[in-house]
Amino acid sequence: MTSREQIVTAALRRLNEEPNASMAALAEAAGVSRATLHRHFAGRQELTVAIGRLAQERWERALDEAGVDEAAASGDPARIEATLRDLLATLADVAHEYGYALTEHGLESDPELVARFERLEARELALYGAAQRAGVLRDDMPVRWVSNAVYGLLIGVRDSLRWGDVARRDVTRLLVETFLTGTGARA
Amino acid sequence: MTSREQIVTAALRRLNEEPNASMAALAEAAGVSRATLHRHFAGRQELTVAIGRLAQERWERALDEAGVDEAAASGDPARIEATLRDLLATLADVAHEYGYALTEHGLESDPELVARFERLEARELALYGAAQRAGVLRDDMPVRWVSNAVYGLLIGVRDSLRWGDVARRDVTRLLVETFLTGTGARA
Repeated sequence: MTSREQIVTAALRRLNEEPNASMAALAEAAGVSRATLHRHFAGRQELTVAIGRLAQERWERALDEAGVDEAAASGDPARIEATLRDLLATLADVAHEYGYALTEHGLESDPELVARFERLEARELALYGAAQRAGVLRDDMPVRWVSNAVYGLLIGVRDSLRWGDVARRDVTRLLVETFLTGTGARA
Repeated sequence: MTSREQIVTAALRRLNEEPNASMAALAEAAGVSRATLHRHFAGRQELTVAIGRLAQERWERALDEAGVDEAAASGDPARIEATLRDLLATLADVAHEYGYALTEHGLESDPELVARFERLEARELALYGAAQRAGVLRDDMPVRWVSNAVYGLLIGVRDSLRWGDVARRDVTRLLVETFLTGTGARA
């Protein structure tokens, strides 16, 4: 018996490769019939929301494991910078594994996902704000811009791996250096 | 009479606000009946492709107007840097006006859009490569990473404006500074 979670995982893997894959293709990827897929998910939107939930769980775990709340509260520059680098490295992995969920427009229509997104984003904003106050990040940029820049660069990570533009081994360094010091030669 | 192009423009404006808007909502936004919308576009995918084409025309115009090919060929650091800054400023506007097209998965299924995307991207890659050789950009990053980072940051621009996180007046500076020198305090 293929569980609901196994179907979601298999569908996600397929959608990471081809975001427009049909429900028939997703059933095939999960090794179930279309009838079974439809018994679990009334339609594409319901499956998309299940994938979004999985991605948010992974994101939440990344924030917990990096200890972002404690680091932000500490005010300690060295600790904040180490946590920020740790977090970016983990988020690069998450962006690769949950790439489809990063830009799926369907996720915006689910109020529960949106509410949880805001709670998770608030924890990151607190870390970026603490980093600005501790002198780790420039303090002349809106903290929400910093957060949106990280999100954008993670899409860059996802695409770089998806299209084979960058070696997996190099992508974290590229993300962290671009975020902290940019791509300019005279940094 | 509402022309096909007017419908595409009105639909794009609506989709920028709500990427999941229904075909009925798009017809309403364009001030036409659903029957008229369907006479122009057999379905959502056809409308999406028309929006993608419009976005690519705008992108191509941005590359032409910035003179990226000439700047890349010149090898002149000052000219390359000025062109790069000009291009980023224009692309920030394009990202705002064509935001929906930046992350619409449906565009990947159209071979013509994909082929044109690759031709346009190649012109940007040539500019980034020239910038690396001229000492404007760091030369230890794959040029395709640089391109993907720009694309990601443009999504950050789009979202920052869409959610009201950043003032329109500030967003170009934030994009250019983040791209060239990063968000770190010790740049």
